[in-house]
Amino acid sequence: MKRGFGSDNHSGISPEIMQAIAEANSEHALAYGDDEWTARLLQLFRDTFGPQANAYLVFNGTGANVLNIEAMCRSHHAVVCAETAHINVDECGAPQRIVGSKLLTVPTPDGKLTPELVKTQLHGFGFEHHAQPRAISITQSTELGTLYTLDQIKALADLAHSYGMYLHVDGARLANAAVALGCSFREMTTDLGVDCLSFGGTKNGLLMGEAAIILNPALDVDLKYRRKQMGQLCSKMRFMAAQFEAYLTTGLWQRNATHSNRMAQLLYSHLHDIPEVQVVYPVQVNSVFVRLPHEVWTGLQNDYFFYDWDEDDNVVRWMCSFDTTEEDIVQFVAALKRRLAQQG
Amino acid sequence: MKRGFGSDNHSGISPEIMQAIAEANSEHALAYGDDEWTARLLQLFRDTFGPQANAYLVFNGTGANVLNIEAMCRSHHAVVCAETAHINVDECGAPQRIVGSKLLTVPTPDGKLTPELVKTQLHGFGFEHHAQPRAISITQSTELGTLYTLDQIKALADLAHSYGMYLHVDGARLANAAVALGCSFREMTTDLGVDCLSFGGTKNGLLMGEAAIILNPALDVDLKYRRKQMGQLCSKMRFMAAQFEAYLTTGLWQRNATHSNRMAQLLYSHLHDIPEVQVVYPVQVNSVFVRLPHEVWTGLQNDYFFYDWDEDDNVVRWMCSFDTTEEDIVQFVAALKRRLAQQG
Amino acid sequence: MKRGFGSDNHSGISPEIMQAIAEANSEHALAYGDDEWTARLLQLFRDTFGPQANAYLVFNGTGANVLNIEAMCRSHHAVVCAETAHINVDECGAPQRIVGSKLLTVPTPDGKLTPELVKTQLHGFGFEHHAQPRAISITQSTELGTLYTLDQIKALADLAHSYGMYLHVDGARLANAAVALGCSFREMTTDLGVDCLSFGGTKNGLLMGEAAIILNPALDVDLKYRRKQMGQLCSKMRFMAAQFEAYLTTGLWQRNATHSNRMAQLLYSHLHDIPEVQVVYPVQVNSVFVRLPHEVWTGLQNDYFFYDWDEDDNVVRWMCSFDTTEEDIVQFVAALKRRLAQQG
Amino acid sequence: MKRGFGSDNHSGISPEIMQAIAEANSEHALAYGDDEWTARLLQLFRDTFGPQANAYLVFNGTGANVLNIEAMCRSHHAVVCAETAHINVDECGAPQRIVGSKLLTVPTPDGKLTPELVKTQLHGFGFEHHAQPRAISITQSTELGTLYTLDQIKALADLAHSYGMYLHVDGARLANAAVALGCSFREMTTDLGVDCLSFGGTKNGLLMGEAAIILNPALDVDLKYRRKQMGQLCSKMRFMAAQFEAYLTTGLWQRNATHSNRMAQLLYSHLHDIPEVQVVYPVQVNSVFVRLPHEVWTGLQNDYFFYDWDEDDNVVRWMCSFDTTEEDIVQFVAALKRRLAQQG
Repeated sequence: MKRGFGSDNHSGISPEIMQAIAEANSEHALAYGDDEWTARLLQLFRDTFGPQANAYLVFNGTGANVLNIEAMCRSHHAVVCAETAHINVDECGAPQRIVGSKLLTVPTPDGKLTPELVKTQLHGFGFEHHAQPRAISITQSTELGTLYTLDQIKALADLAHSYGMYLHVDGARLANAAVALGCSFREMTTDLGVDCLSFGGTKNGLLMGEAAIILNPALDVDLKYRRKQMGQLCSKMRFMAAQFEAYLTTGLWQRNATHSNRMAQLLYSHLHDIPEVQVVYPVQVNSVFVRLPHEVWTGLQNDYFFYDWDEDDNVVRWMCSFDTTEEDIVQFVAALKRRLAQQG
Repeated sequence: MKRGFGSDNHSGISPEIMQAIAEANSEHALAYGDDEWTARLLQLFRDTFGPQANAYLVFNGTGANVLNIEAMCRSHHAVVCAETAHINVDECGAPQRIVGSKLLTVPTPDGKLTPELVKTQLHGFGFEHHAQPRAISITQSTELGTLYTLDQIKALADLAHSYGMYLHVDGARLANAAVALGCSFREMTTDLGVDCLSFGGTKNGLLMGEAAIILNPALDVDLKYRRKQMGQLCSKMRFMAAQFEAYLTTGLWQRNATHSNRMAQLLYSHLHDIPEVQVVYPVQVNSVFVRLPHEVWTGLQNDYFFYDWDEDDNVVRWMCSFDTTEEDIVQFVAALKRRLAQQG
Repeated sequence: MKRGFGSDNHSGISPEIMQAIAEANSEHALAYGDDEWTARLLQLFRDTFGPQANAYLVFNGTGANVLNIEAMCRSHHAVVCAETAHINVDECGAPQRIVGSKLLTVPTPDGKLTPELVKTQLHGFGFEHHAQPRAISITQSTELGTLYTLDQIKALADLAHSYGMYLHVDGARLANAAVALGCSFREMTTDLGVDCLSFGGTKNGLLMGEAAIILNPALDVDLKYRRKQMGQLCSKMRFMAAQFEAYLTTGLWQRNATHSNRMAQLLYSHLHDIPEVQVVYPVQVNSVFVRLPHEVWTGLQNDYFFYDWDEDDNVVRWMCSFDTTEEDIVQFVAALKRRLAQQG
Repeated sequence: MKRGFGSDNHSGISPEIMQAIAEANSEHALAYGDDEWTARLLQLFRDTFGPQANAYLVFNGTGANVLNIEAMCRSHHAVVCAETAHINVDECGAPQRIVGSKLLTVPTPDGKLTPELVKTQLHGFGFEHHAQPRAISITQSTELGTLYTLDQIKALADLAHSYGMYLHVDGARLANAAVALGCSFREMTTDLGVDCLSFGGTKNGLLMGEAAIILNPALDVDLKYRRKQMGQLCSKMRFMAAQFEAYLTTGLWQRNATHSNRMAQLLYSHLHDIPEVQVVYPVQVNSVFVRLPHEVWTGLQNDYFFYDWDEDDNVVRWMCSFDTTEEDIVQFVAALKRRLAQQG
């Protein structure tokens, strides 16, 4: 397949990760996480997120999100999220099916919840006919490539807690957010009152690996059973733990995220002087959302793979990855300009 | 960790598999199975199991079993299985929670269902108070290391079909069964009328990879959605497909399974002249279940890791793997004899 | 409790219904619907809705709605409904928990879906990440007291069918709609292509009784098991069937619905000359939604029970019932005017 | 339908109950339990079972059992019960589907669990692959018409609590057990440490009404939401509460249960001198289970309705009810003797 701007999970595996897997591949290890790699990783997560943090490795982002929702909610609870949230539009209804909980969705201009938007859903408490709001779920960085500031996250955490609710962060691209904000993982989660976190690795260079990280110990109840019951318990877990260990200890997460963010900025910089292309959301991490003429983007898809985001509105998503090169950007912009010229 | 006889998933990854992952790690590929590796693998599964076979790669055995049960059943259906079945005792109730279906369990002498045993559960059809028997699930080879003959599988398939039911095979160790029976995968499944199959790879040398293979096309309805909803859809699926491709095309599955079975026979052969050790099930694949004095097996666990199977009955399980060596066996038997002598 | 305008289920039982229960209370009858009353009723429903109709008596509206959704959907499907739909806001997430299906909600001006509104949700077909739109659910008459015309229902049924989807009608107040539209039950459902119907009785004079009526025989698969499994199978079903039989054969449904609709019109007619009271939705069945000064409606709640509908917007709901009297209306309007005068 | 011995829910409604419904049928009442009848009933349950008792009225026995299991368990928990338990064989898998919990079933000689039988299932604690035993569920009186003594219940409660588990009693026929044991409801539940109770009324003269009664306040968490979500919240609840109020305050429960138990004893007394009829379980409440020649019981079913219990073993169940008469018994025994003579 030709290289493209389809998704950061269209890229392969970072060399550091391949090496970590190879090094873990020696002799026997207990299965299901009772191995030394996983033990070291859990400590590493505690070092990273605070001593109370407890991590559950799972296979994918849906697994992490659903396990976190399961930690916060029972079936009569509801989760407030943006209409564009991955849990709402990209998981085929997994939260509803697996946990039984309802999502209370809110339209947003930029993929970001605000206290004001969340409050539109905070009613019906104590009324048994109404699914009880129990959690707020945000995505950092968002599905639209935008970022919450630390203050904005704190405000949502404070709001949640003032209602006896919890704040979940879907951090499939948390690394991209961290380097963009110039803060540590802990500063953008634990220190702000985030209760649980889906910590992604797959989109930033891992073969496979996500973690549901429980930051609020009150939520850390019986989750090992529920991870197993959901089919999210890996047998040869050392190979997942080894990936995360390399990811966190070699600085890979920063290098990869910094690079993919930089590539998005580079792409963005080339768009300034192309009047037919409108950038529709702030370019804050590794994606660029643009509106451009229909014939142009459909033509360009013959050259490069990328997804339309809103076909009716001619908005498409260009996603950069840790293996996107400057050359990729230059050629892509050239192809874009060719297509524009052809349409002109 | 010291080498042991705990489980075939305590072993690592076969070199052929590591190489396949490395080779797949180039350039971009579409995610979620829309890649060339997965396309080739699905064809390979059709070549292997017959042109009607359709495979869904999933993360682990629980995922494969639950997706297959979902293919056969709705929530008011029931699955007849042995009391010792993995789906009954080792998946923390996943089939019940995810599908909602009931398991109708039958005690067996050797982990194997028979038509007579199954028939004890085949009643209440049409009676709305009773969960409706809809599928028979067997494990090949069984959790007790025993084997169904082809005739025995056929008899269960015929029984199932005569009631309008389906036959599922949990084949976490299907390779071990195939080499023991000296038949192809197809001869032991499709050709006998098996409707769906959990095809395992992880216990026989893969990093991670299982497949729910639908052999009866009538069951192949909307499963891609339900795989996704259950959190079993892998994003960078090429790396799972590449493993299976190497597994099937290089003869790895046979080499590894033949070896682990042979190691179990070797271990078994050393037990003949040890009167304190009773082998409690036929040694037909890669495990040996023995009864021996309590102090002996608990002492031996200081030297080697393995699981007690029935502590009250002093039965333990010794599992051989693709990386078990003859030297492992010789030393283990020596250690066993030392422990016996100490107890003498 | 003082009489009020809280809900049509605040009223008791019509005398005809009490008599039917008493008459059914003789000798023995088989339980769970294998009785002569239920047999007669099922025939009566076929006479009413067409020979293909099959009815499942259930305990309440949530039971009827959930069983109908279960008939149309599996867990990866989604149901398009108005944001104000009872299944969305008043069943504590039952559809999500029990069926596992997602609701795709649409804001509406008057509680009514239109093809245009529905189409905003009809995308993502075949895309496994997206819950698959499978059904449209409308409420007739709506939760806001408005009515779909027959043409509007037909347009939604046609839209649904053109996408391979189904149309469900929540008819908790179908009798009020039927008398308002001057048509038969069949003309407003079966004849328009409605696939399944929640047919209510409780709000119109029954002690207790709702029915999930399957009009499209393709949906009538195994529902008796799922009714049982959901806990909606009544043991002494003759007493529920006898109520519905009297309801349908004595003209009670028409008398009660006609009366409660007429009471709402009477109330409405008294509001014309009260400038402080704005009627916010068309008064088409038995409820009147009005906006009025906060102190007035909270004061009036001291005299009469009724619910606020949107406290922030000072909108309240006044619901008339089969036992509302002209005297009730006259006194209520007098109390309203007194409260207004006090505020003046 | 001719009178018979099929089930105690083949009988109708006791006159006291009809009168209570009629008396409650006046004026308006708040729906969903916010009425004065329900308030009085909840107090009456507290008076009956102790001040900490909290009752949730539901529609049927399955609803009560599932709500109680929901109170005790999350989806990774398991409930130990007899193989013959109603929750295992007569609810179409409702506990599995609705709660997601696993049932761990135990064969019993007489429908009764013992500590020894329960202990066979009490293993795997803390092991995430195993559904965690969380509750013991017994039926009093049992599905086989046998009775637990108070000591036997206490022993099971003590066992449960010693493992951090709970004891649930399915009391669909608790009244029959209470009069047989000569004790109060409280003495056979709360005072022995029972944690929650399904309290039946329908089989003993009510039109419809069961209650999930939480005796252990630690389990009384958020159940009102889950009752609603399960579709078990009655709108015109006053009519269910009024039934129970009459049931408990007029002595009806005792009169009806005493009578049906006495009828079973009367029937039993007539069987002593019939050698072809073997009574297979102790006759302790209102049912008689007998083994008799196949042609005899199938012939007798032409005269009277009753259920075969184990067709292969020629065991049938004769159930007496509150409206069974001495004349019914005399005529039934005469018919039995005629059938026996014909076969002679």
